[in-house]
Amino acid sequence: MSTLDIATAPLDLPAVRSQVDVVLSAFLEGKARAAAADGHPAVVTEFLGTFLFSGGKRLRPLLCVIGWHAAGGHGTPAPTLRVAASLELFHAFALVHDDLMDDSATRRGRPTVHRAFAERHRAGRSAAAADRLGSNAALLIGDVALVWSDELLHTAGLRAGRLADVLRVVDAMRTEVMYGQCLDLLATGRPTASTAHALAIVRCKTAKYTVERPLHIGAAMAGAGPAFRARLSEYALPLGDAFQLRDDLLGVYGDPAVTGKPRLDDLRDGKHTTLVALALERADRAQRRALHALLGNPDLDERGADRIRAVFAETGAHATVERLIQSRCEQAEEALDRESFPPAALGALRQLARGAAARTA
Amino acid sequence: MSTLDIATAPLDLPAVRSQVDVVLSAFLEGKARAAAADGHPAVVTEFLGTFLFSGGKRLRPLLCVIGWHAAGGHGTPAPTLRVAASLELFHAFALVHDDLMDDSATRRGRPTVHRAFAERHRAGRSAAAADRLGSNAALLIGDVALVWSDELLHTAGLRAGRLADVLRVVDAMRTEVMYGQCLDLLATGRPTASTAHALAIVRCKTAKYTVERPLHIGAAMAGAGPAFRARLSEYALPLGDAFQLRDDLLGVYGDPAVTGKPRLDDLRDGKHTTLVALALERADRAQRRALHALLGNPDLDERGADRIRAVFAETGAHATVERLIQSRCEQAEEALDRESFPPAALGALRQLARGAAARTA
Repeated sequence: MSTLDIATAPLDLPAVRSQVDVVLSAFLEGKARAAAADGHPAVVTEFLGTFLFSGGKRLRPLLCVIGWHAAGGHGTPAPTLRVAASLELFHAFALVHDDLMDDSATRRGRPTVHRAFAERHRAGRSAAAADRLGSNAALLIGDVALVWSDELLHTAGLRAGRLADVLRVVDAMRTEVMYGQCLDLLATGRPTASTAHALAIVRCKTAKYTVERPLHIGAAMAGAGPAFRARLSEYALPLGDAFQLRDDLLGVYGDPAVTGKPRLDDLRDGKHTTLVALALERADRAQRRALHALLGNPDLDERGADRIRAVFAETGAHATVERLIQSRCEQAEEALDRESFPPAALGALRQLARGAAARTA
Repeated sequence: MSTLDIATAPLDLPAVRSQVDVVLSAFLEGKARAAAADGHPAVVTEFLGTFLFSGGKRLRPLLCVIGWHAAGGHGTPAPTLRVAASLELFHAFALVHDDLMDDSATRRGRPTVHRAFAERHRAGRSAAAADRLGSNAALLIGDVALVWSDELLHTAGLRAGRLADVLRVVDAMRTEVMYGQCLDLLATGRPTASTAHALAIVRCKTAKYTVERPLHIGAAMAGAGPAFRARLSEYALPLGDAFQLRDDLLGVYGDPAVTGKPRLDDLRDGKHTTLVALALERADRAQRRALHALLGNPDLDERGADRIRAVFAETGAHATVERLIQSRCEQAEEALDRESFPPAALGALRQLARGAAARTA
């Protein structure tokens, strides 16, 4: 293939996804062999492997590779793939800790790490001791995923100056997502009518972390500077907002058989989402009373959830969030219309923008 | 000062400690300013700052700087200090998560992060909700400390090739300490008579992490390769063992007013320490029955602890651990006798070896 062919051929996203998985699986196999040789427990690589390969869209690695192409990179060289894979390992860290904080029962249709670990180690332990062991193991397994995402990055094979550029963006991303989690945590259990605050959490926790920074990291590998990265943000931030807003809806209306996640948890936790903020803002007295009584109630059942969903419908909050998703996706596509990224990257970016609006999992 | 003077002047450890603290405090102040500018919650830098500056021996940063001198480095240039400081931030991560896993009440004479955060946020929350918020916040604050220790390292100002060498050792250290924590976790609550297993946990969890790797990291900054690092290990591993064995004793016999830590936790958790393994190995039937009844009992009181301490005395386990500490420290000093490190480093290494045997906190 000539350079011209490579630049104009559409990016084969399923192929990139497989290549990322090959990197992840080879890395974990190496870690499992090292653990066996050093007398370290095998459970860590086993649980991480099960978690990583039981699902996941690999959205961040894909965006990283797309960012690389957008900034003029060609093909999928090994260092690009390793950096992309490191983002998935970082995401595994974030999800394992997130599930622990929320005490979620399932993820990707399977028991979460802390629950599965507790189950495995029940024999000969009290229920409380097994649960505590499960939580502590998930804490450590998450920590390991973070430490290893670093190692994948450090050993990606980037030349030295390039590595420093990439690390700068990675470090910024990590700080942002941590603060996003903190904002989310502090707001959980006490949702308010502030749509602005809900959208600020979305921006910090998801839009930058899920879409903008992976694109930036890929672009940084191809040598792009801040001005080019700002162009990517025009697309990335509205799309990232849409992504989280869809996630908020799936957390309330999604089919657990498709999402792999329970759909009462967000309501039981009293998450301060845009959906909730809009409903509280527009609720009459009776509706507000219902929301305050039911949101954040750990014993909420499907009947109570249906009452909440009725308020989301009556106030138009649900419909407004759908419209917000639509308009954010359009905004992302319009940003692309103004751009002249290489066709391979442009096609992939459009595909993701359309997928984000309609996804069910 | 001429180069010769610098090389032979004894290393001023308290001065190095202050320099490390200046780096940490400037870094955190920068993060606090950035958080204020970006609308991020101030609690993260506040709690991390309180934790970092309420105590701590700064042992790992000191050893890192000593390793730098041992391998021929001069003075304390900014990159060396930043890498040294990054080890303290990593240690803050490890301690905050460790206290969360053990649900310890105090550290450095103050409430632990998860307890303090829960206290601060009790108003308007149920006790369970406040405790959960405290745990989740400590999880995130620990994660942030890890992420920022990385950033300190990445931005230390090391030249590119050197950074790659240092990162290789740092990544190895992190994997080791994580596995050490896992081994500890899996053994906790079910201590056995296996001294070998207890010593393997010590090696992995502490000896390498606390002494060997910080020295290696410092040496790597000065360009030392694996052969030189192996020479440092001859000193570091026995000293690291001694350090953890002393810690095990302080966890049972220490004065909480001096150690800043409770002294029933290790016994209540049923930690598999060398002290416990030796006692179980040598216990007669009545002593073994007492140990099994009391170790790992969450309601253990000082009276029960005294009964355990009596068994540690009767079986000679306590005295044996004291002898092990003594002989490990001698081994470390003998390793120095065979070496020709620069006098500044050698003096500091001897000082630490003597301090480790006798320390009370």
